[in-house]
Amino acid sequence: MYEELKKRVYEANLKLVEYGLVILTFGNASEIDREKGVMAIKPSGVEYEKMTPEDIVVLDLNGRPVEGNLKPSSDTPTHLYLYNSFPAISGIAHAHSDYATAFAQAGIGIPCLGTTHADHFPGPVPITRVLKEEEVAGDYELNTGKVIVERFSQLDPLHYPACLVSGHGPFAWGKSAREAVDNLLALEKIAKMAALTLFINPEAKNLKDYLIKKHFERKHGPKAYYGQRKEK
Amino acid sequence: MYEELKKRVYEANLKLVEYGLVILTFGNASEIDREKGVMAIKPSGVEYEKMTPEDIVVLDLNGRPVEGNLKPSSDTPTHLYLYNSFPAISGIAHAHSDYATAFAQAGIGIPCLGTTHADHFPGPVPITRVLKEEEVAGDYELNTGKVIVERFSQLDPLHYPACLVSGHGPFAWGKSAREAVDNLLALEKIAKMAALTLFINPEAKNLKDYLIKKHFERKHGPKAYYGQRKEK
Amino acid sequence: MYEELKKRVYEANLKLVEYGLVILTFGNASEIDREKGVMAIKPSGVEYEKMTPEDIVVLDLNGRPVEGNLKPSSDTPTHLYLYNSFPAISGIAHAHSDYATAFAQAGIGIPCLGTTHADHFPGPVPITRVLKEEEVAGDYELNTGKVIVERFSQLDPLHYPACLVSGHGPFAWGKSAREAVDNLLALEKIAKMAALTLFINPEAKNLKDYLIKKHFERKHGPKAYYGQRKEK
Amino acid sequence: MYEELKKRVYEANLKLVEYGLVILTFGNASEIDREKGVMAIKPSGVEYEKMTPEDIVVLDLNGRPVEGNLKPSSDTPTHLYLYNSFPAISGIAHAHSDYATAFAQAGIGIPCLGTTHADHFPGPVPITRVLKEEEVAGDYELNTGKVIVERFSQLDPLHYPACLVSGHGPFAWGKSAREAVDNLLALEKIAKMAALTLFINPEAKNLKDYLIKKHFERKHGPKAYYGQRKEK
Repeated sequence: MYEELKKRVYEANLKLVEYGLVILTFGNASEIDREKGVMAIKPSGVEYEKMTPEDIVVLDLNGRPVEGNLKPSSDTPTHLYLYNSFPAISGIAHAHSDYATAFAQAGIGIPCLGTTHADHFPGPVPITRVLKEEEVAGDYELNTGKVIVERFSQLDPLHYPACLVSGHGPFAWGKSAREAVDNLLALEKIAKMAALTLFINPEAKNLKDYLIKKHFERKHGPKAYYGQRKEK
Repeated sequence: MYEELKKRVYEANLKLVEYGLVILTFGNASEIDREKGVMAIKPSGVEYEKMTPEDIVVLDLNGRPVEGNLKPSSDTPTHLYLYNSFPAISGIAHAHSDYATAFAQAGIGIPCLGTTHADHFPGPVPITRVLKEEEVAGDYELNTGKVIVERFSQLDPLHYPACLVSGHGPFAWGKSAREAVDNLLALEKIAKMAALTLFINPEAKNLKDYLIKKHFERKHGPKAYYGQRKEK
Repeated sequence: MYEELKKRVYEANLKLVEYGLVILTFGNASEIDREKGVMAIKPSGVEYEKMTPEDIVVLDLNGRPVEGNLKPSSDTPTHLYLYNSFPAISGIAHAHSDYATAFAQAGIGIPCLGTTHADHFPGPVPITRVLKEEEVAGDYELNTGKVIVERFSQLDPLHYPACLVSGHGPFAWGKSAREAVDNLLALEKIAKMAALTLFINPEAKNLKDYLIKKHFERKHGPKAYYGQRKEK
Repeated sequence: MYEELKKRVYEANLKLVEYGLVILTFGNASEIDREKGVMAIKPSGVEYEKMTPEDIVVLDLNGRPVEGNLKPSSDTPTHLYLYNSFPAISGIAHAHSDYATAFAQAGIGIPCLGTTHADHFPGPVPITRVLKEEEVAGDYELNTGKVIVERFSQLDPLHYPACLVSGHGPFAWGKSAREAVDNLLALEKIAKMAALTLFINPEAKNLKDYLIKKHFERKHGPKAYYGQRKEK
């Protein structure tokens, strides 16, 4: 019944591997069908090379199983909370990719040092606060979603398509599972280039505001002229 | 009508992916046919894995469409300005490759620390100044070309086959789209080795002038003896 | 007679190559069959691309040959000592992977800077002391096993599935050769991300104890809820 | 007439690419047949993907062409000088691999920080002095060979199978072209791990002398017990 959705989520999860963003079982991608009120996500702890489209788990928006025999990713409550809080997004991807995770572990939001960054984020990549002991002892994965949403109180999730969870790693999103995965790849590249820039020149300056604005609007503003679809 | 040109540009763009210089849609290569007065370039925002030779866009040297249904790369005005200013070049490649972009973001031209560098550039890799606010607000991509040409007022673009645009990334060129892509790959390797050298020894010295001269002329001087074509 | 065991050990050794953990002949994986009282291990100095399942060497637990015409890995006494000392493990993998070996060479146990680490180790990755001159002059490979076991006097080898040998590199283990190899891959990733974290922020803090505990128990505790097999 | 020799040299050159040690045309491998008094080497500036075994150039030991229509590598005088000075070696490989070249550019011999290093070199990897202006102006490639041999006045080239040329990059050697290429790969890994070790701990200590001796002799001493061929 949800074959198309499961196939898209399956293929987006395989892209995580192809892009070099995950090893073993360290990552997951999901997509929501808001009309049907369901989310499809990777099963927990299943190896990518053995996974089939039938293994993808379909849940309703309260997390109750709809289709599939496997347990969903342990990060499912984080995904559901983000879908419920950010109505504009329809796909989420999570991985422990090397450089984005290193910034998360360093406790530092990624500074905006160049136009590649500004093509995707109109400012530093946001990072959450560290979860408190009671938040970890309680519903940990749900609270992971909550600290992300707390961090976005003044931010538009379509302008900032990812967040670092302090001490953990990145979550990225978009209008589909595949777009979320592509945004995670862009984030990893931005993080790698920011780290290299700071190694070469610890005094490297943030990109000028007018350049950040220009690059971001060239791709995402009302007068965007990058790509083939001007009519968006 | 421009099948051969489009095929060469198509293949040069795919080399950017094969060489690991681009992810997603972050890069482009073009080639000019100066006799016919046309330039062929990658379409804007099209994924490499879906692109066909027919998708390559052909323009006249004022940027007016000649062949192809897609919008050309948003960097087209930069390419055209460079072709119009540097009559000796016939191919251009642009990417946000990791180490060359890191130097661009760091605001530092790549110092000449070894013979690999000297095989390709007889001195530091040049870097432009940061574009001014009015240059960004105006015709941004055209002005990107202009700051490169401004930086080359005293430099021969055939001796220095690339330039870093401050805060953005590298543009490389050559006698064809493929040669431009190969020069971009050489630049990325030079940048990586320069960064590693400085990490190992922050006091590393520039290569001696007589070694720079020797290596550059061995490959590019009137008495060049590297490679199979002595008669150039 | 030991065809299944040899095949598993053969495949686990090939995974070391596929995962990028070894080059040339720098590494080995083994598995023990405790009921039959034998261990199977890679032959010494044989290239991975030429190795066949028949080349895998089977030994009894005193190191006497049982099956196979080749000499076993020179690290065999280390493997045997670990199997004899840690009854809960059934597979061991050793490699000189880049980042884990760099920490071993730096003489520093890997600090626990993030949840990826805590998913696998409930604290810093242990590192042995440097072997003494008489330990090296004596039965060196046996003594390598002994310093690992000495380091684990207060640690559970199933909770800490790897150890760095100072100045040498990592040994990892698990319930099979394949699980040992997977743990070695996880260790290499943890080591890489720890190094990058410290490059970005030399003052990076250890993950909070309550987060370490949560992540470790989510995967390995009595109430583990990661993965498909809750009934373990 | 030299088909076997050319085939071995061809395959060793392709291994340079497969191992990730060269891009474009940056590298070469050769092998000498001392009985026949000939050396086979890669042609100059030919792309690896287009090269065939027939393109390999055969020269006598004075550098005069014996077989093949192409010009030999411009580094040919370096190779010939090394073969004439080090009678025990029969293969040479040269590349601008990232980390070994970074140490060469940094002007620093690679310190012996771990057992992987000691498995291949019983001390720091030697580095030449910088060539003088008159040596560069004269027969540059021959003089490159001479500074390597000068550096080895007190060293056995079979114990130290590589040398860094200051500001340039590594040359490695062995009993065949393939063994030289394998030694170059081992050198690159040793260099990478040394750099990472120093980034993690700038105060990292050299491996203890007794461990260096043990590891080197385990593989290369008269009582070597690593690998399958004890009778050497």
